[in-house]
Amino acid sequence: MYKKSNQIFTLYKPNPIPKPRKNLNTSRRNFHQCLKWMLLVAQCFGQIPVIGITDPSARSLQFKWKSWRTVYALLNCLGSVCLTGTFLGNLLVNGMDLFSSTSVAFHVNTMVVTLLFFNLSKNWPHLMNKWADVEDSMSSYGWPKYLDIRINGTVLVVLTVAIIETSIVKVQKFLLSSANGKDESLFEYYITALMYPHVFQRIEYSIWWAIPMQIINILLTFAWTFNDLFLILISTGLAVRFQQVTAKLRILKNTKNTSLDDWRAIREDYNRLSQLTKTVDDALSFMILASYTNNLFFILVQLFNSLRSMKDTLEKVYFFFSFGFMIIRTVSVSMYGAWIYDESKEPATTLNSISSDTYNPEIKRFIDQIKFDTVALSGKHFFYITRGLILSMAGAIVTYELVLIQFNVNLLQDGTSET
Amino acid sequence: MYKKSNQIFTLYKPNPIPKPRKNLNTSRRNFHQCLKWMLLVAQCFGQIPVIGITDPSARSLQFKWKSWRTVYALLNCLGSVCLTGTFLGNLLVNGMDLFSSTSVAFHVNTMVVTLLFFNLSKNWPHLMNKWADVEDSMSSYGWPKYLDIRINGTVLVVLTVAIIETSIVKVQKFLLSSANGKDESLFEYYITALMYPHVFQRIEYSIWWAIPMQIINILLTFAWTFNDLFLILISTGLAVRFQQVTAKLRILKNTKNTSLDDWRAIREDYNRLSQLTKTVDDALSFMILASYTNNLFFILVQLFNSLRSMKDTLEKVYFFFSFGFMIIRTVSVSMYGAWIYDESKEPATTLNSISSDTYNPEIKRFIDQIKFDTVALSGKHFFYITRGLILSMAGAIVTYELVLIQFNVNLLQDGTSET
Amino acid sequence: MYKKSNQIFTLYKPNPIPKPRKNLNTSRRNFHQCLKWMLLVAQCFGQIPVIGITDPSARSLQFKWKSWRTVYALLNCLGSVCLTGTFLGNLLVNGMDLFSSTSVAFHVNTMVVTLLFFNLSKNWPHLMNKWADVEDSMSSYGWPKYLDIRINGTVLVVLTVAIIETSIVKVQKFLLSSANGKDESLFEYYITALMYPHVFQRIEYSIWWAIPMQIINILLTFAWTFNDLFLILISTGLAVRFQQVTAKLRILKNTKNTSLDDWRAIREDYNRLSQLTKTVDDALSFMILASYTNNLFFILVQLFNSLRSMKDTLEKVYFFFSFGFMIIRTVSVSMYGAWIYDESKEPATTLNSISSDTYNPEIKRFIDQIKFDTVALSGKHFFYITRGLILSMAGAIVTYELVLIQFNVNLLQDGTSET
Amino acid sequence: MYKKSNQIFTLYKPNPIPKPRKNLNTSRRNFHQCLKWMLLVAQCFGQIPVIGITDPSARSLQFKWKSWRTVYALLNCLGSVCLTGTFLGNLLVNGMDLFSSTSVAFHVNTMVVTLLFFNLSKNWPHLMNKWADVEDSMSSYGWPKYLDIRINGTVLVVLTVAIIETSIVKVQKFLLSSANGKDESLFEYYITALMYPHVFQRIEYSIWWAIPMQIINILLTFAWTFNDLFLILISTGLAVRFQQVTAKLRILKNTKNTSLDDWRAIREDYNRLSQLTKTVDDALSFMILASYTNNLFFILVQLFNSLRSMKDTLEKVYFFFSFGFMIIRTVSVSMYGAWIYDESKEPATTLNSISSDTYNPEIKRFIDQIKFDTVALSGKHFFYITRGLILSMAGAIVTYELVLIQFNVNLLQDGTSET
Repeated sequence: MYKKSNQIFTLYKPNPIPKPRKNLNTSRRNFHQCLKWMLLVAQCFGQIPVIGITDPSARSLQFKWKSWRTVYALLNCLGSVCLTGTFLGNLLVNGMDLFSSTSVAFHVNTMVVTLLFFNLSKNWPHLMNKWADVEDSMSSYGWPKYLDIRINGTVLVVLTVAIIETSIVKVQKFLLSSANGKDESLFEYYITALMYPHVFQRIEYSIWWAIPMQIINILLTFAWTFNDLFLILISTGLAVRFQQVTAKLRILKNTKNTSLDDWRAIREDYNRLSQLTKTVDDALSFMILASYTNNLFFILVQLFNSLRSMKDTLEKVYFFFSFGFMIIRTVSVSMYGAWIYDESKEPATTLNSISSDTYNPEIKRFIDQIKFDTVALSGKHFFYITRGLILSMAGAIVTYELVLIQFNVNLLQDGTSET
Repeated sequence: MYKKSNQIFTLYKPNPIPKPRKNLNTSRRNFHQCLKWMLLVAQCFGQIPVIGITDPSARSLQFKWKSWRTVYALLNCLGSVCLTGTFLGNLLVNGMDLFSSTSVAFHVNTMVVTLLFFNLSKNWPHLMNKWADVEDSMSSYGWPKYLDIRINGTVLVVLTVAIIETSIVKVQKFLLSSANGKDESLFEYYITALMYPHVFQRIEYSIWWAIPMQIINILLTFAWTFNDLFLILISTGLAVRFQQVTAKLRILKNTKNTSLDDWRAIREDYNRLSQLTKTVDDALSFMILASYTNNLFFILVQLFNSLRSMKDTLEKVYFFFSFGFMIIRTVSVSMYGAWIYDESKEPATTLNSISSDTYNPEIKRFIDQIKFDTVALSGKHFFYITRGLILSMAGAIVTYELVLIQFNVNLLQDGTSET
Repeated sequence: MYKKSNQIFTLYKPNPIPKPRKNLNTSRRNFHQCLKWMLLVAQCFGQIPVIGITDPSARSLQFKWKSWRTVYALLNCLGSVCLTGTFLGNLLVNGMDLFSSTSVAFHVNTMVVTLLFFNLSKNWPHLMNKWADVEDSMSSYGWPKYLDIRINGTVLVVLTVAIIETSIVKVQKFLLSSANGKDESLFEYYITALMYPHVFQRIEYSIWWAIPMQIINILLTFAWTFNDLFLILISTGLAVRFQQVTAKLRILKNTKNTSLDDWRAIREDYNRLSQLTKTVDDALSFMILASYTNNLFFILVQLFNSLRSMKDTLEKVYFFFSFGFMIIRTVSVSMYGAWIYDESKEPATTLNSISSDTYNPEIKRFIDQIKFDTVALSGKHFFYITRGLILSMAGAIVTYELVLIQFNVNLLQDGTSET
Repeated sequence: MYKKSNQIFTLYKPNPIPKPRKNLNTSRRNFHQCLKWMLLVAQCFGQIPVIGITDPSARSLQFKWKSWRTVYALLNCLGSVCLTGTFLGNLLVNGMDLFSSTSVAFHVNTMVVTLLFFNLSKNWPHLMNKWADVEDSMSSYGWPKYLDIRINGTVLVVLTVAIIETSIVKVQKFLLSSANGKDESLFEYYITALMYPHVFQRIEYSIWWAIPMQIINILLTFAWTFNDLFLILISTGLAVRFQQVTAKLRILKNTKNTSLDDWRAIREDYNRLSQLTKTVDDALSFMILASYTNNLFFILVQLFNSLRSMKDTLEKVYFFFSFGFMIIRTVSVSMYGAWIYDESKEPATTLNSISSDTYNPEIKRFIDQIKFDTVALSGKHFFYITRGLILSMAGAIVTYELVLIQFNVNLLQDGTSET
């Protein structure tokens, strides 16, 4: 049965676009263009220093070592490594408690993220080209509705909230500075006493140290949020494409006189998407690990802090705002990631309903593939991002929080007895 | 092989009923009729304001904005939103402890449930029509034995127990009122001191405030139980249908000279049922989430309360009665939900025993579908209701209880040291 | 292809035994005979009152209401219900602490087990007949080597250890009695002060109360161990049969010129065994639940007790002996149960290695069935007995133990502060 | 379709090597040779006393009872059993606390490992012959690149770190000895007071007792690390072979005019590898169990110790070094073990992408096998070594640590109150 169809359809080409790889000046909309604004903002903060992000086609993307963007990004990397180094050095000398550990965790995590994004940018043109290939072969599906608005809207919302959160911290700290600072300038107190006391215990204060450190700090704060945002956008891009496959499948199911080739074509589209998901997963796995580790850690610490009484209202407001933001970020990354998985399983229901008249080996193979494959982003294959993961994380947080309480029970009792 | 059968049986129609959709005045028994009493009771309490629930056919169901039932339900929604609002407002001002949190949780949960049911009622005619379609196509199976009695019996039992439980609370609170109330009327004390103290701290007591608040409170108490009851009934309706498929399959297995079409018909019946389950799941997922969240929360709090010593016998009796009811409700929702899943897997055993003489591609496809599909109600796909879920919940309750104890250890020590 | 083979082999009969159901006087060895000694012992202790257990064939098994064995078993049931009733009544009046709870748990559990076994005995002839059918159809496999010795050896070992354990308790309690008892007889002190104080606070001591209570107590102690033993033996019986299928499969794999019918026959043997496992599981599910609940509870309590300091050496020795026995019993039930599951998956490896020359649709169907089916005993489908279950239980024990400690922290502190 | 291909290709032989079993003097590189250095080192420490490890072919491997290596290994076994016996005897008399338990656990675990390795060595020639068979049949794949370097590099790194760790302990203990030892010799104090005080409380000190005990101690320390190292090397050997299958599959996918036999051959290679993995798993399962139990136990104890304050810097450095080594060992064993599993699933992606023109029953069967089979090392089938296991272990460690803290809360409070 297979043989026959093979002989007849040897000339079959799944997609009518003849030379996708050379079709550089395509005016078609693509995911690469969609990410333009996000990447522009990212480059302002020294991330993903690739050239050609405003180009209509992904084919002209390039990573160059000799480019101002790359130099800027490298300086960013260097700065974050140095800054994190001072924290780690201090850790070795003075040991660690739960509260100083948040600063360390923030710096280590953002340093790792910055390095990972620098590494990704070398791979970015290749990745976007693969993505463009899939998009070319899916050109008959049209452009996913509202994808541009969705992507840019997400960027806008997340960055706005992140800016608000950062502002509250800064205001809170400046208020604290103005309350305590005596003869020093506000900024000096802020930097030397609140931000990097361990550095300025060793070296003398100088504005030439303070300013770059403050800049690096801002860049790192951006990287902190950007990692999650980036994962959400990429997930969206993949999920809507799977959605299109399911939609087309529903149409095909209700079409009369479908040929074996129609089914083969849609199966191959699905397969191409699932291969793309694997490629993307390989490229982003460490960032996913970094995102989950970071979010898990900060949720645990914040939850622990909530057990200690807070002094003033601003602190309370900030606490709930920042804790809420952290939870929403974590859940969003998980839900958008799980979206891919959910959409990748969606065709099965339609395929099972196909009448026996139409049923054919291609459909069988399609069903078999959906059954078996786990098409999902993963944390280096340690875990797969599905809806179930959120429940597992909730359970893990509860258990780890218990340990945190047990290990720091003295800290907590001191904290409560003080107030 | 597939091709052949296709050509021959193109005219095949799985069910002999010619125009199911227009067959409005059918005298056949259906699930819609089955739910009549349940819906009548629900409408008395301002839930599911659809028109045509006493009609013999589901085809005449309608949701109208301009209808007294809808107005009543909307007032119910409005009332519950306002009442819950006062609790949340109070929460922001005065903070929360574990015991005040039960009132808040009760009001938030019932408000959500009320809104969800209002939303469902718009979708209800469509859902029942789909259900009726499946029932029509399964008319050859006959009406599931005792389904009416089973459904109405469940309604009767659950509501009776709920009324008893509510009565005990009310009696307990009135006794408390009569013990404490001095110059105020019993009812005034009950409302202002026990039920809504936070409201009457702000506004002055008036019978025109007290009566609607008491009415809303009764409606909410109904909604609290109704959600679980509703899920149990719907689960029963689906599970017995799957049971019928398995029963027919067993007969078919022992029948000689079956044609490919017989197997195709039964597979399509199964598939239609599994599609219906998916549709129902989409419609009810949030209610399932609400039910599990609510039950989990109250079990945790009640378990925590059990650690504190109780003063009088009435309190003890009420505690065990209400805790038992809560446990039984939770387990029932899970067991009835899991019933669907269990029944959906049941045909596999029979299909595996079919002799090789009869084995055909339709059977193969049937087995493959049962293997792969998870036919079950779910909490928005975060979890699927299966028997295993009950064990997982038991484990989760234990772990969360530990955290609850750790977080409220002071509360507990105070409570025990007092007595 | 299927059609063809069907026409040719319509007359095919998988097993050469013509009328297995009427073949009552078979001299062949069977599982029914294997259980003879176990059942004889059980009947001495008032369990499984069926007639015909010493008969060579399972066909003559019968359950009769009018039989001395049934009357004895009914008295046993009645006694255990009454005795447990006194405990539960006392519980309601005096409340419960962790240590009195072990007596209650022991009596409730053994009462449940006794009732379940009485219920099983009505079903036993039917079950053993089904088993005999499968054995008849597998007569070409021969009798599993050493099965008799294995079964009877297990009975001997388990009962011996159980008797030793019971003896230690009795000796310990009599020593305690002789140390404390003043003017009363040893036995009176033992019964009234140690065994059933709550009963003899209400009624006056009389030897006519004491002796039956002591007898029931012994019967219950037997039931306690017998449940686990029974599950182990049944598991063994099923697992060795699956082993035979795998063994035959390996021979078949290396045989030249096998026909489709050979493969069909072995697949049907496998399927028959897996159906038998399902039937057995349905019959024993509640006993499995009872066994796991009981073992879990006692392990938790014993572990908790190990935190309290023990006074004398005999107590220590008894503690470790009895705790070890409990652990070994639990692990044995799990391991023997998991044996069925492991053996049921075993054929897959052999089937996957079959060369493409031999590969045929029957093999494909065989593989598919093994893949999908969960052939295992289960606790009412809440959990399946597999090796993984043991790890899960270990985890559950740890978590529940934590809760037990939290809930009884006072008890523990009192216990340790005393010593 | 199957029949046809069968008739045509009955003469097909999957591999061109005519008599692999007799081909003793092959000059081809093989895994047996790869392990040469590792085995030589192991034999110096009395492990795996087989003859012929330096031979180019695995066919000449032999286990002989009458051989100096076997005698040496037996003495090692005997020594470790005796030494462990003294610890267990002491345990029974004096009871156990958490800190003395580490010595006991170390000796019990290494004794078990030593006995397991002695047992394995009897099976080793057989196992390596099976491995050689698979290697022979995969000769067309060539030798996995860098496998020699990888294996020997791992041996070098692990043993070096182990030597460093052991040296730190010894130095620390000798420093402690020189600080405390008065009139005794350093070595005497070290042995009698620090290493085996419970032995020398009973017997008088003699150099003729001390030296063999010290030697056995060194051999056991080697066995402790060797178990993990051994598992890592075996895992590597299997994983790289699966990698080769995937690589060849990718080439085959892009080859034109492949015959059914090409696909059959590669499927059979895969199947042979998966059979080999099962054989290896059967041989090593208990060592895997021993490794995980040991690592889990020591991580828990070390984590618990980290809660107690440490006195001097050397103690701190040693603690972090040894704890880090323990974590890295555990994670490495898991990651290398999981590598097999990951590689065994890898072909699926490629097979799913094969175009419908090439798709054939062999590919279908290949996909089905990958889908179903769990090709992985396991801890006696209680758990399978996959990446997910690491997360599960992390969760288990956290929960068990909680229990450890609860059970030893007094110990911890004493420890902290002292400082």
